[in-house]
Amino acid sequence: MAFSAAEQAAMRRALELAATPGVPLGPNPRVGCVLLDEHGATIATGYHRGAGTPHAEADALTNAGDRARGATAVVTLEPCNHHGRTGPCAEALVEAGVRRVVFAEPDPNPEASGGAATLRAAGVDVEAGLFAAESGLLNRFWAFGLAHGRPFVTWKFATTLDGRSAAADGTSRWVSSPAARHDTHRLRALCDVMLVGTNTIAVDDPLLTVRDEHDLPLAHQPLRVVMGERDLDPGRRVFNDDAASLHLRTRDPKFALVELFDLGRRHVFLEGGPTLAAAFLRAGLVDEIVAYVAPMLLGAGRSAVADLGITTIADAFRPRVTDITVLEGDAPNVRLTLAPGEDR
Amino acid sequence: MAFSAAEQAAMRRALELAATPGVPLGPNPRVGCVLLDEHGATIATGYHRGAGTPHAEADALTNAGDRARGATAVVTLEPCNHHGRTGPCAEALVEAGVRRVVFAEPDPNPEASGGAATLRAAGVDVEAGLFAAESGLLNRFWAFGLAHGRPFVTWKFATTLDGRSAAADGTSRWVSSPAARHDTHRLRALCDVMLVGTNTIAVDDPLLTVRDEHDLPLAHQPLRVVMGERDLDPGRRVFNDDAASLHLRTRDPKFALVELFDLGRRHVFLEGGPTLAAAFLRAGLVDEIVAYVAPMLLGAGRSAVADLGITTIADAFRPRVTDITVLEGDAPNVRLTLAPGEDR
Repeated sequence: MAFSAAEQAAMRRALELAATPGVPLGPNPRVGCVLLDEHGATIATGYHRGAGTPHAEADALTNAGDRARGATAVVTLEPCNHHGRTGPCAEALVEAGVRRVVFAEPDPNPEASGGAATLRAAGVDVEAGLFAAESGLLNRFWAFGLAHGRPFVTWKFATTLDGRSAAADGTSRWVSSPAARHDTHRLRALCDVMLVGTNTIAVDDPLLTVRDEHDLPLAHQPLRVVMGERDLDPGRRVFNDDAASLHLRTRDPKFALVELFDLGRRHVFLEGGPTLAAAFLRAGLVDEIVAYVAPMLLGAGRSAVADLGITTIADAFRPRVTDITVLEGDAPNVRLTLAPGEDR
Repeated sequence: MAFSAAEQAAMRRALELAATPGVPLGPNPRVGCVLLDEHGATIATGYHRGAGTPHAEADALTNAGDRARGATAVVTLEPCNHHGRTGPCAEALVEAGVRRVVFAEPDPNPEASGGAATLRAAGVDVEAGLFAAESGLLNRFWAFGLAHGRPFVTWKFATTLDGRSAAADGTSRWVSSPAARHDTHRLRALCDVMLVGTNTIAVDDPLLTVRDEHDLPLAHQPLRVVMGERDLDPGRRVFNDDAASLHLRTRDPKFALVELFDLGRRHVFLEGGPTLAAAFLRAGLVDEIVAYVAPMLLGAGRSAVADLGITTIADAFRPRVTDITVLEGDAPNVRLTLAPGEDR
């Protein structure tokens, strides 16, 4: 594999374009594309803006017009080969007279792959693997969905040092520090569903929106989802106009995730109470845990997680630690990120 | 203040001597002394080995003999001025013909202070303040005892991410990682009392000794103390020959601490269960908290701490964080060190 300096710079730019804020995670991958002329100068760029909109390559080709002839297309994902809502990108690149295609990673979607072969058959020079890991990271939740048929689930909770998420009277504002809450909003903004149970809505009446440091909602909001069979007061804050919301009348984590997948959602941020968290853990449907530990003791109150059916220490649930970060402040909180093993 | 390079080096050495392993914390401060000749060369050294043994200055003077005449004495604490079990060091230094005395910090003990004045009255050149902070740290538990009339209490606990110190069936080996357990033994070795309640002895039957990485007991052991009114089986491991042990038949933390203070103890390492820990916290008798958080969930089981009488989040016990350290390993544990405010 040999990539020119211009191609490497173009792939970095394509990755940035793919990650443009506001592009929904949705059921489609994030893809960016840069067209270079024979001297390595940029002719045009493009990126995919979500289901129903042109693919990144088509967007770039439209922006380039006739100047695409003889160009090198640098794209973060293997150009697709299938007739979906838009025509196959591999064919479009051939028709536009593109001479060379550099892409980061092969398309893992069996319905769409084969673009590289199509291009090569048409005489286009194709090289793959430039910044493949970066592209993979960008689309990890999309790829997870392809592999598992459900969204990726991040369970977030905040706890005192003695494992309490609320005091005996139910009050929980605030267990976590301002820095930890700010960090949580940063993580919320990276997902496309906020999920809680009906009990959390009834007891805490949270907004479940992603807000900035001035507590104002961001332009792009995850879907706010409440699951559970209980009726809810339509005056609860989760049903306000700050973002879309949905009440899924089920207690079954698996069923809820399949529903959300079918709605095109790929990354669920689970902020439910101890009972809902325990249901997801027991069903093996938590893919990432983000725990904020506050330097505080309560001695009583709501536990961070309800009964998991574990009775002896040998059976403790021991997820793998992927990161530990101290969030500085008057009361430093510790954020632990953990990945449950595949066997649970 | 002006201290020569030789005096600074001598004070570093005196601090090392003061901290010689095996010197009990006991009711006396840790003190080291170095005698220098007029060229800054070391004549003799000495250190205090605990109650009933010579003070550091006396030890050094004995080692020096006639060579002490005209010397500079570099000592970590102001030479004492009182007739205790040994004569006043200030007078001994004058009699030995010492010309100059450099010490780190003034003696906070009202019964023993005044040594500097005595020395100056006898025409000795006296300078104070060299490495005062280091000496203060060395004797912080002794100084705490002078100020409060009870030992300093470090409460140590190990907990899962959801605040459990044992599973539902009572098993707790091991919540914490090998690195965390090793770290705990290092901290145990720095105290002079290991304290638990009768319930911990009945349920867990711990050894409560300080052991090395091969699980062998160290030569110097803290006193193992069990408190509570319940009778205990003398066959329990805490009563074996590895170290001294004591059953204090009281449930009152304050009474227990005064007893231990009268026994010359100055630093209690509290490893009791949730009930005993709660009793100390509620009595305001915890001076330091060391919490090991393990990346594990249990969902049920023994809480790290029992009811503290806190019912709402605004009243949460919020100690100040003094250190956060990640103890690396297959399952990294986080050690938080915290200092309760003076107001609790």
